[in-house]
Amino acid sequence: MSTAEQRLAELGLELPPPPAAVASYEPWVRAGNMIYTSGQLPWRDGKTLLFKGTIGRELTVDQGVEACKLSTLNAIAQLKDAVGNLERVRRIVRLEGSINIAHGYTDDAPKVLNGASETLNAVFGERGRHSRMIYTFPEMLLGVACLIVLWAEVD
Amino acid sequence: MSTAEQRLAELGLELPPPPAAVASYEPWVRAGNMIYTSGQLPWRDGKTLLFKGTIGRELTVDQGVEACKLSTLNAIAQLKDAVGNLERVRRIVRLEGSINIAHGYTDDAPKVLNGASETLNAVFGERGRHSRMIYTFPEMLLGVACLIVLWAEVD
Amino acid sequence: MSTAEQRLAELGLELPPPPAAVASYEPWVRAGNMIYTSGQLPWRDGKTLLFKGTIGRELTVDQGVEACKLSTLNAIAQLKDAVGNLERVRRIVRLEGSINIAHGYTDDAPKVLNGASETLNAVFGERGRHSRMIYTFPEMLLGVACLIVLWAEVD
Repeated sequence: MSTAEQRLAELGLELPPPPAAVASYEPWVRAGNMIYTSGQLPWRDGKTLLFKGTIGRELTVDQGVEACKLSTLNAIAQLKDAVGNLERVRRIVRLEGSINIAHGYTDDAPKVLNGASETLNAVFGERGRHSRMIYTFPEMLLGVACLIVLWAEVD
Repeated sequence: MSTAEQRLAELGLELPPPPAAVASYEPWVRAGNMIYTSGQLPWRDGKTLLFKGTIGRELTVDQGVEACKLSTLNAIAQLKDAVGNLERVRRIVRLEGSINIAHGYTDDAPKVLNGASETLNAVFGERGRHSRMIYTFPEMLLGVACLIVLWAEVD
Repeated sequence: MSTAEQRLAELGLELPPPPAAVASYEPWVRAGNMIYTSGQLPWRDGKTLLFKGTIGRELTVDQGVEACKLSTLNAIAQLKDAVGNLERVRRIVRLEGSINIAHGYTDDAPKVLNGASETLNAVFGERGRHSRMIYTFPEMLLGVACLIVLWAEVD
């Protein structure tokens, strides 16, 4: 069994530095054995906000998938910041995804959020099998394509 | 005191088979003593998606109430799948309801979501008394009328 | 170290009576060491619903900030109702904020929700440092400016 870090490397993915929160809150909080991240945006290297736009208008569905993947890497980076080692993540409990998607494109939203789900499954294997809730919005703050939250049970 | 299954029968309600997830995630996850379902749609028998449309446009408020009731039965079916016997449900902790509702009808949304709340109260009695969060959207994926999530504390 | 009640007084804030739920659910539920409130509206004294309107249209951004502050006081009142004494709140784990905001104003939504975050930080200090999730809607039930949920870990 490879570790989550090894799988990231095998997938050619690199964890960005955990982004700071964009306002007066924490990027993650621990309560008991649970870590809850705040909403994670598609930051590259914690500095450049990528994938600005509404899916179906300025962005394609495939770009939406990539935005979810990148936001999920940022969320995983928060989990690592919280517990030090991703092997201490026992289970990804829930994925919350808000998707910025144009009128007439909402049926594509589950496929877009699969960009997050499949990243979790690929990186964490059985431990990555999560429940999820999806929200679709006609417009989102900073024009971002998505906002991703993870809940993880940890050792 | 009758059991949850007895109350379902008294109410003339039948639990559908727990629907499979519509994408790359699990229909429920357990963490500690908590079960979290994923978003549940108004599937009949896990096969036919009912109540497609926006409340106030293609659907009436009463149809919205029925959609919430049916989605809640699917969510209860997930809880049963998770713990085997609904008597092991100690408490319904939270109901999350996303409602697909037209401009000018959002004031009806709490009444629509009461279709879910009242089902929980009728089936679980004191154990069904839950907190809730409501979200109203002008459009939802697959054109569904609602999406329901339950959190339950279990033995 | 002053108590949360002392800080409220220093800030010139008064806890309203905990508002009753507006439908068939509970204003808060406890599960293990966690309290989850239901969505809290900007009620004054549990009787008058203030700040009706969409931010950027009927309401200014500053009024949105005030609405979040007031809803948060109602949420804190629910926590007090749940545990009797705010000193038993070990940590505010998560803030959920739904913001009713007009087209073109979503970039102001984080600033609006800071009205909630900064109230939590001011009242609870280190214990108030929370994760958060923001949702922006073009329309909300009862025309309210915001809906606020708190999760707290308690003794």
